[in-house]
Parts: sequence; C-alpha cells; structure tokens
Amino acid sequence: MKSQLLEIFQRRHACHLFQADRCISAEDSNFILEAGRLSPSSFGLEQWKFVVLSSQHQKLALQAACFQQPQVGTSSVIVVILAKLADLHPDSEYLRRLMAREYPGDALEAALKNYRSFHAATDIKAWSENQCHIAAANMMTAAAGIGIDSCAIGGFNPAEVIRLLDIDPARYYPSLIMPFGYCAHAPGEKQRLALEELVEYR
Amino acid sequence: MKSQLLEIFQRRHACHLFQADRCISAEDSNFILEAGRLSPSSFGLEQWKFVVLSSQHQKLALQAACFQQPQVGTSSVIVVILAKLADLHPDSEYLRRLMAREYPGDALEAALKNYRSFHAATDIKAWSENQCHIAAANMMTAAAGIGIDSCAIGGFNPAEVIRLLDIDPARYYPSLIMPFGYCAHAPGEKQRLALEELVEYR
Repeated sequence: MKSQLLEIFQRRHACHLFQADRCISAEDSNFILEAGRLSPSSFGLEQWKFVVLSSQHQKLALQAACFQQPQVGTSSVIVVILAKLADLHPDSEYLRRLMAREYPGDALEAALKNYRSFHAATDIKAWSENQCHIAAANMMTAAAGIGIDSCAIGGFNPAEVIRLLDIDPARYYPSLIMPFGYCAHAPGEKQRLALEELVEYR
Repeated sequence: MKSQLLEIFQRRHACHLFQADRCISAEDSNFILEAGRLSPSSFGLEQWKFVVLSSQHQKLALQAACFQQPQVGTSSVIVVILAKLADLHPDSEYLRRLMAREYPGDALEAALKNYRSFHAATDIKAWSENQCHIAAANMMTAAAGIGIDSCAIGGFNPAEVIRLLDIDPARYYPSLIMPFGYCAHAPGEKQRLALEELVEYR
C-alpha cells in the first residue's frame, strides 16, 4: 500500500486546464464526496458543506469569480466547500446534535460548557476553514487515486461567490473551490523542499 | 483502488490512547512525513514545517501542554506541524526562492507584485494554518494506509508549545500536534452526517 499511496500523492497535481469534453461519472464524484465526508474534524463537528455544480452556465459564472482561472470553466464538476459559521455557535441546534453524538448522555452538558469557552476564545471562521482543508485534501487524494485531476482554488472573490450561490454569509463562508475533471496538460515537475529542510528532529 | 481508499478513510480514526510499548519504524515515519511533504499548498509555498519528537521526556512535556491528553504521551512519534509566518513575507529569502520555483524567469517580478497585494490583504497565520491542515490530512491518510493510527490535536496551549520547542513566534506558529502509533483501543463507530445532509446539488 505504501508505494500505491506514494504514487497517488506524486500523481496529484494542480490542474490548470481540464479537457472540457470529458465528464466524471456520478459514481466517481460520489466517491470523491464520500472521501470528504469521512474526513476527521475538530470536535467531530464536520465544519464543511459541499455545494456541487456541473452546469456550464454555473461553471462560467464561478470562473469569473475566480479571476477567470480556466480550470474552473473547463472542469467536469465543481465542489464548493463552505465553512460552517452559525451552526458552530454553542446555542445552535446543529451544534447540540453533533456534540450529543460525540458526548452522549451525562457527558453532554460538561462538553457544551467546555465548547462554549472554546467558541468564545476562537476565531471560528479560521478554525472552520482549517477543517475544510482537511476534507479538501482527502477529496484530492481520492480523486487522484482513480485518475481524476483536481485543483484547490483559494483565490476567488468571496463576496461574488456568496452572491452567485445565494449563501447566507452568517451561516457559511466559501472556503475552497474545487474543480475536478481530466487534465488537458501533462503535470509539471513536482517541486518540493527536501525532507532535510522541512523536517527537524529534536 | 476505490475500495482500498475508502477502506483507509473508514479505518482512520482519532486514537485517544496508544500502545506505549509499540514503536513505529523510521521507514514508516519517513513515509508519513513524505506524504506531508508531497501535499499541495497555496502558491506552492509549503507553509508547513515538521518537528519530530520521540523521546519519552519530550512526549510527556508536550502532553502537559495538550491538557494531559494521554494519546500524546503514549504515542510512538509526534509530528508538530508549525505554520510558517515570517518566511511568507514578500521580502523574505524563502518567499523569493519558492516563488522563483513556481514563476521562473521574467514571470517572477509580476508574481511577487501580485503576492505582495495578497499578503497585505490576507490573515497570513490563518492562511498558513489552512495549508498545514492539508499536510496533516495526507499524513493521517498515509499512516492509516499502513495500519498506523493517529490523532490530530488542535487543543493545546500554544504559548507552552512555543516555549517547549523554543520556537521563534515571529517565524512559526504551532498549528497541529500529531501523535502517531498503534492504538490501544478499538475505533469507535464512525459517526458522520449523511451525504444527503452534507451535499447540495445546484
């Protein structure tokens, strides 16, 4: 499994242009979403929501909000990862429901009290977006594992994406735009710092 | 590959106590670090640094900074993921070097100018930490792929971790503490929202 996983991590690359005429099957896009769904998250709160777009009209509108990056409009399917905001408030129905799942029975009230302090002391948007990046990583790995290319896009106009998707900005913040498809170009050479520069043994 | 990857994502769980007497081989921990190294990052800037700890003395000191969570002290090896800060400043040597790798030759100056605006408008710590979560996800996937358990810990006293690791806080911020090892308990039942609640098709 080691060499197969390394091969997947090596193969995954940022695709800057997709073959616009090649589509991902519904089964494959479900598999990618499932990898996102199974991801770990802080307090098990699944801070992400996945909005899936596949019409040409929507892709081009989103491309305009992504400074016209052509991988958006040429992709087969786009997953917009929204970071939950209001649902993470200690008084929300969502929060109580998910905390009750992690801390059943008598443990719940103490966990909620602890979470209330955490919430008050935390930049909730930043923390929620952190978790979205975990789900994004797993979706990219899943896609690469079945030969589907991707590109995680953080460079977009959030206000424009909020408007296009008609999102309640108190409830969700667009964290990443993830086009998937079959890449139209060969991957560039993977450039990474050597492990020696990246890792410090103490 | 689909069923093998799903099996890995299903198998990965947050381990709350490791078998303290079982060690990870150097080869396996290198494989996990390599998965982190190959991760994608915004602008290709590899915003992470990995500090690896494995002495019992260090693990227990770190456990104290993690509100005594026992998976820290019982793990075989701990990777502390530091989010780069000062290195991401447009004037840093690191930044110029990595941008020159992505934008060779004449493209560099325009890319640096663009990056300078981005840097001024961005919460750099939050953005850097986002990328660290991508690397963390890939390390957990790699570990699970070879039967090694993990637990991503965001709940720690950052000032205490900075002190323990003797980090320059202008240069790095501790983003995640990742203990790895062989879990001492069976995984709990994986609880996730159904895809129907998580995904919205537009």
